Amino acid sequence: DMARLITQQHNGSGKLAGKRVVITAGPTREPIDPVRYISNHSSGKMGYALAVAARDAGARVILLSGPVNLPPPTGVEVRDVLTAEDLLQASSQAVDEGCDLFIATAAVADYRPRSLAGDKIKKSTETMELPLVRNPDTLATIAGRPDAPFTVGFAAETTDVADYAKDKLQRKKLRMIVANDVSVPGLGFNSDSNAVTVFWPEGQETLGPDTKTVIATRLVALIGDHLRQEEHE
Amino acid sequence: DMARLITQQHNGSGKLAGKRVVITAGPTREPIDPVRYISNHSSGKMGYALAVAARDAGARVILLSGPVNLPPPTGVEVRDVLTAEDLLQASSQAVDEGCDLFIATAAVADYRPRSLAGDKIKKSTETMELPLVRNPDTLATIAGRPDAPFTVGFAAETTDVADYAKDKLQRKKLRMIVANDVSVPGLGFNSDSNAVTVFWPEGQETLGPDTKTVIATRLVALIGDHLRQEEHE
Repeated sequence: DMARLITQQHNGSGKLAGKRVVITAGPTREPIDPVRYISNHSSGKMGYALAVAARDAGARVILLSGPVNLPPPTGVEVRDVLTAEDLLQASSQAVDEGCDLFIATAAVADYRPRSLAGDKIKKSTETMELPLVRNPDTLATIAGRPDAPFTVGFAAETTDVADYAKDKLQRKKLRMIVANDVSVPGLGFNSDSNAVTVFWPEGQETLGPDTKTVIATRLVALIGDHLRQEEHE
Repeated sequence: DMARLITQQHNGSGKLAGKRVVITAGPTREPIDPVRYISNHSSGKMGYALAVAARDAGARVILLSGPVNLPPPTGVEVRDVLTAEDLLQASSQAVDEGCDLFIATAAVADYRPRSLAGDKIKKSTETMELPLVRNPDTLATIAGRPDAPFTVGFAAETTDVADYAKDKLQRKKLRMIVANDVSVPGLGFNSDSNAVTVFWPEGQETLGPDTKTVIATRLVALIGDHLRQEEHE
């Protein structure tokens, strides 16, 4: 629409003007059998809000989305994924196509069932052991590429949020990590509001509490500043 | 609204006029830890369509709904549930309050994690065993009550659908069971269309393929006929 066209034209000088941005969003779903699956709580709202904010900041945005109930944002290329393995493949492909900034908000299932049962498993015993195997780590894989884009991760933890986020930043070789404390009632997950602390190797900044839309706009501005700074070093 | 008021007044003579109907719908969600869970594919559309059809047939409807993305139908009392244990408790309570007809469309997780981790489980090992315990069987519990309402179950199977449905009908002491073959592409689950075969001890009838709305109306009419017939025996 016209308003968006004007916004886009204005943002030829936006903080992410001309940048190619890949954002992952939503949960992954790991099938146990044709009817059952393991998943994570994730509405996808933060990732979708970031996609819109990055678009408005002048970026070309590819949004890799797990199963969510959100309308695809206009002017953003949405590619659907289901499992963690799908997400890795779609991420690698999107980065191969050219990517300046990779933002990983998806709530990826760490483990998947070892084997997928072709037919629905019938219940018979009182207890059962579900054998799981670890999923590939998309974030670490992308950040560890020789041609890695500027990679931003998210940490959704319930305890020791700051310590865990700073450890994940180093361990996965991220440029920035966004930590939100999911144990604060009314924030994160399916909420429309959020409060986050962004960590990078030399500093940190807290944003919010505010709506996910406002947080997303401020995050994109902050990330855009760091991306530019790095380019000028 | 007026149209519905007229429909309701007309249906003082509807097939379920004056009946108290309890319908379960949607998936259950079994938490592994604060961020992960086990669930089943289920949009809840069939249960919601049945609630509307039963309402239009003159019934007072209580809809026990797992987490779905559907608007609550007007004129239907929706009670939210999350886990299989929630569903059993809410079902028992709704039946205690008075229930002529119980229709169980919910896709209940057969198993839940044995223990709920208070904090997010950190991944560390390449493989993991997730210990599961069997969930309570709401359908069998309700159908097995001395004061059991007319109980209708659903069977969502991928193989031997008819055999399994007829076995489940007997085993759980149901009056009717509705089987849909989820292996038929484009039907069931998240689809808007469905084809079902209804079994009762002395017969069977196939409905559809048709929209879930039409199937729901025909199902309510068929169930209403059997319910009346039984009352007159």
